Amino acid sequence: MTEVTRHLAKWVVDSKFADIPASVRQSGVRSLLNWMGCAVGGSRHETIDRAIAALKPFSGPGQSSILGRTEKFDVLHAALINGMSSHVFDFDDTHLKTIIHPAGPIASAVVAMAEHRPTTGAELLHAFILGVEVECRIGNAVYPAHYDIGWHITGTAGVFGAAAAAGKLLGLDEQKMIWALGIAGTQSSGFREMFGTMCKSFHPGAAARNGIAAAHLAEQGFTSSNRVLEAPRGFAHVMSTARDFNEITGGLGEVWETALNSYKPFACGIVIHPSIDGCIQLRNEHGLKPDDIARVDLRVDPLVLELTGKKTPQTGLEGKFSVYHSCAAAIIHGAAGEKEYGDAVVRDATVIALRDKVDAVAQDDIAEDEAFIKITLRDGSVLNKHVEHAIGSLERPMDDKALVAKFDDLARDVLPVERADALRELCWKVESLKDAADLARAAVVVK
Amino acid sequence: MTEVTRHLAKWVVDSKFADIPASVRQSGVRSLLNWMGCAVGGSRHETIDRAIAALKPFSGPGQSSILGRTEKFDVLHAALINGMSSHVFDFDDTHLKTIIHPAGPIASAVVAMAEHRPTTGAELLHAFILGVEVECRIGNAVYPAHYDIGWHITGTAGVFGAAAAAGKLLGLDEQKMIWALGIAGTQSSGFREMFGTMCKSFHPGAAARNGIAAAHLAEQGFTSSNRVLEAPRGFAHVMSTARDFNEITGGLGEVWETALNSYKPFACGIVIHPSIDGCIQLRNEHGLKPDDIARVDLRVDPLVLELTGKKTPQTGLEGKFSVYHSCAAAIIHGAAGEKEYGDAVVRDATVIALRDKVDAVAQDDIAEDEAFIKITLRDGSVLNKHVEHAIGSLERPMDDKALVAKFDDLARDVLPVERADALRELCWKVESLKDAADLARAAVVVK
Repeated sequence: MTEVTRHLAKWVVDSKFADIPASVRQSGVRSLLNWMGCAVGGSRHETIDRAIAALKPFSGPGQSSILGRTEKFDVLHAALINGMSSHVFDFDDTHLKTIIHPAGPIASAVVAMAEHRPTTGAELLHAFILGVEVECRIGNAVYPAHYDIGWHITGTAGVFGAAAAAGKLLGLDEQKMIWALGIAGTQSSGFREMFGTMCKSFHPGAAARNGIAAAHLAEQGFTSSNRVLEAPRGFAHVMSTARDFNEITGGLGEVWETALNSYKPFACGIVIHPSIDGCIQLRNEHGLKPDDIARVDLRVDPLVLELTGKKTPQTGLEGKFSVYHSCAAAIIHGAAGEKEYGDAVVRDATVIALRDKVDAVAQDDIAEDEAFIKITLRDGSVLNKHVEHAIGSLERPMDDKALVAKFDDLARDVLPVERADALRELCWKVESLKDAADLARAAVVVK
Repeated sequence: MTEVTRHLAKWVVDSKFADIPASVRQSGVRSLLNWMGCAVGGSRHETIDRAIAALKPFSGPGQSSILGRTEKFDVLHAALINGMSSHVFDFDDTHLKTIIHPAGPIASAVVAMAEHRPTTGAELLHAFILGVEVECRIGNAVYPAHYDIGWHITGTAGVFGAAAAAGKLLGLDEQKMIWALGIAGTQSSGFREMFGTMCKSFHPGAAARNGIAAAHLAEQGFTSSNRVLEAPRGFAHVMSTARDFNEITGGLGEVWETALNSYKPFACGIVIHPSIDGCIQLRNEHGLKPDDIARVDLRVDPLVLELTGKKTPQTGLEGKFSVYHSCAAAIIHGAAGEKEYGDAVVRDATVIALRDKVDAVAQDDIAEDEAFIKITLRDGSVLNKHVEHAIGSLERPMDDKALVAKFDDLARDVLPVERADALRELCWKVESLKDAADLARAAVVVK
């Protein structure tokens, strides 16, 4: 395959919205809704406060909204900040084949651009889906070798997707789309070493910003390599030890990565999800109250204790690394959203009392998305639940109702209920919006 | 070495201007002068026109000047554009150990910042030298493995240097300097695949911009890894197959990479420099005129013909890849600056006539910076010159007079002579400037 970049660029340029199957469009809408909830919900994080304090002096005209807040920045900075907000809780979407969080780089780009230049909702959704395809296909081509080296693939692959989406909105021709991918690719960056620091959420934001800039530069005739993906000194050789270009060009328009996107129901590392899922199911089936419970016994994949074995978390962030806290809070509150990982909940006496009754044992023959939960009540009775596939997995995806509950939980924490509800409805009907800028306008705090 | 990043950051934070030997400061001044000439001279290139057209709509307030032009952009965008201008002719400085072009990422950062916040000339020069040290030492640690993979080391190492220089101007403490290096490092990027396209000069510009942003983010407490250089998933492992951290931390404050900077006397690939040098020497020693010459015979390193063997160049750019044109133009004009690579000179009948009399033979035992030139005159007499080390090499550096001639040639092409001369004098006395913003203000075109 000698013309991988051209092949991909041509597909993006030639794509018509009508070519995209309805089910894929609906997957796109769900991804966008989930992203919007995460971005609005994460917008008050101190990561965002600090980024805004640092970059505000350099922002251009107030072209685009900072979601969940009052500020307006230029398109590039707005995309950067919104991309950070959407990832800062680690609660956004996951393309499970590559661990890419697809929406951050792409949605942040197209939503910010839509406020600056007339864009219909269908155009936005179309560009978003194409961007996700470009991003995830490039990820597929180099995963896992690329990730194993230490690259944060959401940033490194995301910048290509953002450029493709931005270029689609700008109506670039084939040559300029190739250049946009090239200008984007030569900015591809982001180390996994940054996990656990504010730089992690910087990566999807920077990918969005750099992708938009790449498309605008290409629009003006700013040249680049025609072979950024496949050249011996291009992306797939320089940034990976293995590669399969057929993952990029094979089945374009037939196999859709957007349809494989998944969503986290719980605001913590995915390995605890089966345990939380089982606890919430038992709670709801039996109307459990904390006082009823004598002990909770979990049998889990070994990774659970390795990654989330913290017995006595002191802060909300530490709570995310405690399977004990997670299950206790889930039984008491019936959820494990961002709120259940607040400092107050982690320090709550009732939660701590139940947490101390949770025991977990690792078993090699249990899968990562599997768990066995046994709850022994004070009256001696025993409740069992075997979670074969946690909610949020591809085998048991979150349904629209669950996505709405997650969105509401996140958005209502930041926006008044009526505004959060209106924003949710705009997301659902994005395909029919005459002006896609309505999305961002509905997502801000009115002074 | 477990704390490479901290060690380097601490050195930058603790450095006092008085610690820098006078000869190193003078090397810094020469680097700055050479950079300024290149940036002003390159500012009218279509690469710059296109970048400005694309990015102007997103620029913030007019905080900093675009050198050689009339526009003012925000600090970040000004650094980006000026960094591109300074590299677009491939005529800027070279750290020969790593092929880094040191000044682009660093000078573009500090000169743009100096217009936004009060900075003395000594502070600017100090930050510039520290930035070059950080950049070149990180380069030394991973060269040549890192470069051989396909990374454009000026961009990848430059972003660290830009962050260090910007952080020094902001007065960051040790922790924040570490974060600045981390935020910069996780943006490290740029493929050699982009050589020959406009993206090549984008790399130093982006490094300057991203380094400044990194320092400002760190100033606001935006966190990053403490170990971006040495961590298993950090820069030196992810982006190189070999590394020597002692190159970063060994002899800090004793060995100065700034003093090893070199400058191109001729606006073309360095392999032709010995031939041009010898031709100009013979011309000046003997007052040669083109009509006197029967033939020119060169014996050169094989790379010369491989890289610059174009017999009949049609454009200025092609002229840079023709040892024949280069020698002919040099004999006629006594120089091989940007002007001698203009389309008009390449198409000039006198130049073409002499070009056709130039013959070049490759010899394996001739070094890259060596050449033998034999000019046979119409009267049968023969002139010989053996260039052991070309002008511009470390063994035979350009003296101040040659640097001035180069600067004047570049700057006077864009600025009125009096303004170009005044700018040159400001560069020479940068150390004593009360307000380093004078530099940028002197380098713009007054409407």
